[in-house]
Amino acid sequence: MVLNSRDSLTCQVRDVLDRVGDKWTLSVIYELRDGSRRFTDLKRAIDGISQRMLTVTVRSLERDGLVERTVYATVPPRVDYRLTALGQTLLKTAWELIDWATLHAAEIDEARDRYDHRPPTPV
Amino acid sequence: MVLNSRDSLTCQVRDVLDRVGDKWTLSVIYELRDGSRRFTDLKRAIDGISQRMLTVTVRSLERDGLVERTVYATVPPRVDYRLTALGQTLLKTAWELIDWATLHAAEIDEARDRYDHRPPTPV
Repeated sequence: MVLNSRDSLTCQVRDVLDRVGDKWTLSVIYELRDGSRRFTDLKRAIDGISQRMLTVTVRSLERDGLVERTVYATVPPRVDYRLTALGQTLLKTAWELIDWATLHAAEIDEARDRYDHRPPTPV
Repeated sequence: MVLNSRDSLTCQVRDVLDRVGDKWTLSVIYELRDGSRRFTDLKRAIDGISQRMLTVTVRSLERDGLVERTVYATVPPRVDYRLTALGQTLLKTAWELIDWATLHAAEIDEARDRYDHRPPTPV
């Protein structure tokens, strides 16, 4: 592990976490796990994402150097996205977090339910 | 791995990711890695967090069953937070993501700089 028990997170690291921890970012990274995909294909795969939000997300990922964008001069133009080498290293780590979320989503839901139905306590 | 290459993320899983992927959430989880800490101590450790944002973050973590809150009847009252067993499992996964962000923050900064200085391309 890079960080040891005395370090706190720097602002730069927190900014990176804020970006890559975003649910749409993780969804796109995850959908690119098997190779390149078209914009329209990504949109279909990610339930509930709007065209605009997908555009913003892939553009940020491209800016961060995590995703590579290729435009083919067809009519209409075809746009493909794929993970860069750096994006592949994020996928590996993100997958663990996604697995954690998948494994514990029901447990978290139950905890929320308990919390919402308990008597109020003083702040 | 729980998810296989044909699955997409469900809405429930995405909601969990959105919550735990938040930079303040990850910062709090990380600061609780060595055991329980007082609210004031957490606030000091997490550079840039406001009292209100820390309150919102620990309350959400408590609601999710990831953090346990103990109030001691001193004057003024002392409030301690510690990870639950579930929170400990998140710490392990989150630590990997934090390590990834720490290791690649400079690389991402460079990629952003290149992106921001390249000639515009058609959308």
